Amino acid sequence: MNESIERIKTLAAKLHGGDFLLTWEHTPADVEAVLLAAKVLEQLHRDNVSARVFDSGLAVSIFRDQSTRTRFSFAGAANMLGLAVQELDEKKSQIAHGETVRETANMISFNADVIGIRDDLFLGQGHKYMAEVAAAVDEGCRAGVLDQRPAVINLQCDLDHPTQSLADLLHLERTFGSLESLRGKKLAMSWAYSPSYGKPLSVPQAIISLMTRFGMNVVLAHPEGYDLVPETLENAGRFAAECGGSFTHTHSMQEAFREADIVYPKSWAPYAVMQERTKLLEAADTTKLDALEKDCLAQNARHKDWECTERLMSRTRDGKALYMHCLPADISGVSCEAGEVSADVFERTRLATYHEASHKPFIIAAMMLLTRSENPAATLRRLIERGTPRQFQEM
Amino acid sequence: MNESIERIKTLAAKLHGGDFLLTWEHTPADVEAVLLAAKVLEQLHRDNVSARVFDSGLAVSIFRDQSTRTRFSFAGAANMLGLAVQELDEKKSQIAHGETVRETANMISFNADVIGIRDDLFLGQGHKYMAEVAAAVDEGCRAGVLDQRPAVINLQCDLDHPTQSLADLLHLERTFGSLESLRGKKLAMSWAYSPSYGKPLSVPQAIISLMTRFGMNVVLAHPEGYDLVPETLENAGRFAAECGGSFTHTHSMQEAFREADIVYPKSWAPYAVMQERTKLLEAADTTKLDALEKDCLAQNARHKDWECTERLMSRTRDGKALYMHCLPADISGVSCEAGEVSADVFERTRLATYHEASHKPFIIAAMMLLTRSENPAATLRRLIERGTPRQFQEM
Amino acid sequence: MNESIERIKTLAAKLHGGDFLLTWEHTPADVEAVLLAAKVLEQLHRDNVSARVFDSGLAVSIFRDQSTRTRFSFAGAANMLGLAVQELDEKKSQIAHGETVRETANMISFNADVIGIRDDLFLGQGHKYMAEVAAAVDEGCRAGVLDQRPAVINLQCDLDHPTQSLADLLHLERTFGSLESLRGKKLAMSWAYSPSYGKPLSVPQAIISLMTRFGMNVVLAHPEGYDLVPETLENAGRFAAECGGSFTHTHSMQEAFREADIVYPKSWAPYAVMQERTKLLEAADTTKLDALEKDCLAQNARHKDWECTERLMSRTRDGKALYMHCLPADISGVSCEAGEVSADVFERTRLATYHEASHKPFIIAAMMLLTRSENPAATLRRLIERGTPRQFQEM
Repeated sequence: MNESIERIKTLAAKLHGGDFLLTWEHTPADVEAVLLAAKVLEQLHRDNVSARVFDSGLAVSIFRDQSTRTRFSFAGAANMLGLAVQELDEKKSQIAHGETVRETANMISFNADVIGIRDDLFLGQGHKYMAEVAAAVDEGCRAGVLDQRPAVINLQCDLDHPTQSLADLLHLERTFGSLESLRGKKLAMSWAYSPSYGKPLSVPQAIISLMTRFGMNVVLAHPEGYDLVPETLENAGRFAAECGGSFTHTHSMQEAFREADIVYPKSWAPYAVMQERTKLLEAADTTKLDALEKDCLAQNARHKDWECTERLMSRTRDGKALYMHCLPADISGVSCEAGEVSADVFERTRLATYHEASHKPFIIAAMMLLTRSENPAATLRRLIERGTPRQFQEM
Repeated sequence: MNESIERIKTLAAKLHGGDFLLTWEHTPADVEAVLLAAKVLEQLHRDNVSARVFDSGLAVSIFRDQSTRTRFSFAGAANMLGLAVQELDEKKSQIAHGETVRETANMISFNADVIGIRDDLFLGQGHKYMAEVAAAVDEGCRAGVLDQRPAVINLQCDLDHPTQSLADLLHLERTFGSLESLRGKKLAMSWAYSPSYGKPLSVPQAIISLMTRFGMNVVLAHPEGYDLVPETLENAGRFAAECGGSFTHTHSMQEAFREADIVYPKSWAPYAVMQERTKLLEAADTTKLDALEKDCLAQNARHKDWECTERLMSRTRDGKALYMHCLPADISGVSCEAGEVSADVFERTRLATYHEASHKPFIIAAMMLLTRSENPAATLRRLIERGTPRQFQEM
Repeated sequence: MNESIERIKTLAAKLHGGDFLLTWEHTPADVEAVLLAAKVLEQLHRDNVSARVFDSGLAVSIFRDQSTRTRFSFAGAANMLGLAVQELDEKKSQIAHGETVRETANMISFNADVIGIRDDLFLGQGHKYMAEVAAAVDEGCRAGVLDQRPAVINLQCDLDHPTQSLADLLHLERTFGSLESLRGKKLAMSWAYSPSYGKPLSVPQAIISLMTRFGMNVVLAHPEGYDLVPETLENAGRFAAECGGSFTHTHSMQEAFREADIVYPKSWAPYAVMQERTKLLEAADTTKLDALEKDCLAQNARHKDWECTERLMSRTRDGKALYMHCLPADISGVSCEAGEVSADVFERTRLATYHEASHKPFIIAAMMLLTRSENPAATLRRLIERGTPRQFQEM
């Protein structure tokens, strides 16, 4: 822990007072500081040392899409630092209207230290909404309406899913021993078949935008028509060039898996469908929306062979690539008839995916700590020195 | 802060062990103590000093109507003092029945320090329900069922909205410098047009009942048919007579605004509609309810000229009256086609209305503190002396 | 309190690291330890001494059926010990599927110390589900996915309702002076008429399985067709034989009440209906389900004479049997036309039933403490010695 804290001190991370919305807006120092703080918080939790930094305060959450995993991770993170979760339920609120985002953002922030938002349903909207909330609390702070500026944390938008990709990166660091050892490793971010509709594009976009920053050779694979938002492909290309790795793009899952060190087979919706869907939803055209869903599922069904099987896994480096998934996976014969991954592959790697998921509460807590704390290294050191047991220790 | 605490000590406020349901049931000392305690709590928050008074305990909330602002204010207040919010969701519960109010009130109170209730939909019901809950926890305490008596706090009923009107009063005190300086000021509490249906009467009732106690000249303006509950008009008349101000009643918005120091243009439902609605809802007559809604909206539409515009504002004292609103306002051309206030007036005063709203969590926390603490001045002094940082301070 | 703590020390209770699912899986020492710890926690609460054992941590709740009382008791218990409640809302989650119970159980447990579950709707399912969750967190712990194993606490299943029956037992101990004094007392656990449908069988099953362990003479009475799950009748017979009491079974409410010291008249659904219902629900056969509900209500209606009246009460020991109910009761002429109990009997004993209910938060807190604390006696002693006021005490 001391080493991590010393390293945080030397990094010129600039997270204090700001938000965490898109990894590519943050410096390598910011990203590394999140990982380091998360590791210290994990160790504190294992050692039964309280990480309580707030005596009171609210962590507001806004979920514009279903969530179990991220909801519990956010709750765990907030609670760990001493914040109480207060969820904003938008049903019948007027928050959807441009004007009142400004207002609502301030109304929920008088006692808020953090605002976590999931808004991943519509292309062109999620990130925009988060940026509006951030601008509104900026204005509220400048005007003296808010005593403190709550940090806005992206719990998944249309562009990025930073709490997932950073938890994944921490999983890679743990698995391969260090960030340095990730250089030159091949990661296959591949589309996979799922019988479900409208899955967000943010996970693959997050993975290609982040992993290329660590010298990895990232291959993106998907059938034709399953493109990602161009900005994120540009990120991946630029970062690969800058950081000594590579970014390639293929329409073959087989090719992507060949000699891969890591595979991430995961379904997402066709790009054109997501764009069309946004328009139809705005127009509230339910007839066309139903038709679109049918088309989309039919389109998916043409690619049932995009499944992560043992045969495909055998093509990876020594047949032993690390399997990753943000969960829940669509497991063939288990959670659906045919899905993203075969039952044998998933069962073999199941507990590893739980480990992968276990980092998320600590990644979120690290983002909260780094955005809200002026000197996070000193804060972490004080937590260790204070040594308050999380649970009372009897003699 | 010291001055405020000394003043609380000298006031003979009698809030401990009781509830906060209607401002007019409370002495001026009670009302002033709430303002003073709220100001101390605001200062503590600004100074990053924890106001935690409870190591554990529940703040139960019962929302029988939609709420964002008050819900977050209640959550902020409870959290500030160390209480966890536990919401009672009445769907499918039997609480609506007279008999079981007694029972439910006790069942939710074993670990409760506070019960906050919003019940503002039906004339003749909200306050009655709160009084029943209060009587039930009285009985539970006397019988030894409850170790402590939770304070019932009115988060808006059919008669009053004390957490709003006291936050508004604090805003007036801040704006004009002191409570004393409010003497002789003209406040226009005016109806305004809104395209929405069934807005409660409690805000105007709360304002005229409270502001007349501070020597203000309060004018109530509304179109014919938009009367308020008679009891609250009587309050306003009596308090004006007792406290050296005045209370007048007009059907002209222009007249109300003339030379006003403060204007509060806000929509509410016609009195007869609210009475009829209560009966129809009890009879569950949905056909007549739909017809009533149509009638009501048509009745409203006849008064679209009741809009707070720059032209109307120019009639106020030096054209510079303070604009107040409990938010969200219906802003013409922004949140609706035609509404309570023009976009230019609202935009000019928008941040001031956020400041107005910012007092509510602290007003609610003050009510909690004063009802639950035997010696609130001593409690506040100890909070200052203890000086626990709300957020950990690093060196 | 000292006596209770000393007694806990001498008991070889084996709750640490485990769950609390069915009372009959636990030794008498376990059961007595829960009662003792609950009494200490009640005294601490009365004395305004904080029972906070956790500086942070989550108490996850999963309610697969409506709940007010148990929900608030769980919230009170968690809060008392320092845990924040985080509810899992299963709507649209995939938890219902066998495979993903394992996964979801781990995903919600990274920061969880306790998981409370109510799942009482379907025979053969509730307990099974809880056991699956328990097995999943066992696996997660062994694999190092979870730093700590959350305790699974049964908040009512198809077989047992331990938090209710133990609160009831504490009520009996308080009323009769000691557990020892319960020996030889006659308890009538009787079916009673209710106009409602599908009430769980778990309360009568819990009562006969637990009270027979304390040397009581337990009589179970119900009309033909209202049998209980056979396993629980076997429990009652075996415990009666082992513990020096008796367990008898009758179809006459009159006979059950004769010379009874305690009566527990309470409705439940016919056994055959509950079995049929489970099948129809699995088949989603709504037509047959509606027909079943009608049949069931008609079957109930044949037994309207199973009502606890003053006349029936006069048959009990000196006409003064203790009336018990888990609440809410169906009170004739009050909450329904004809129900489980007459208004005069209920009104006379109403406050006693509130006392009965008041133990539940402390019973649940005791289960949390005993499952999570390695040395609960030492923990309780430290709470007393620490003496932190729950609410700040002013001079």
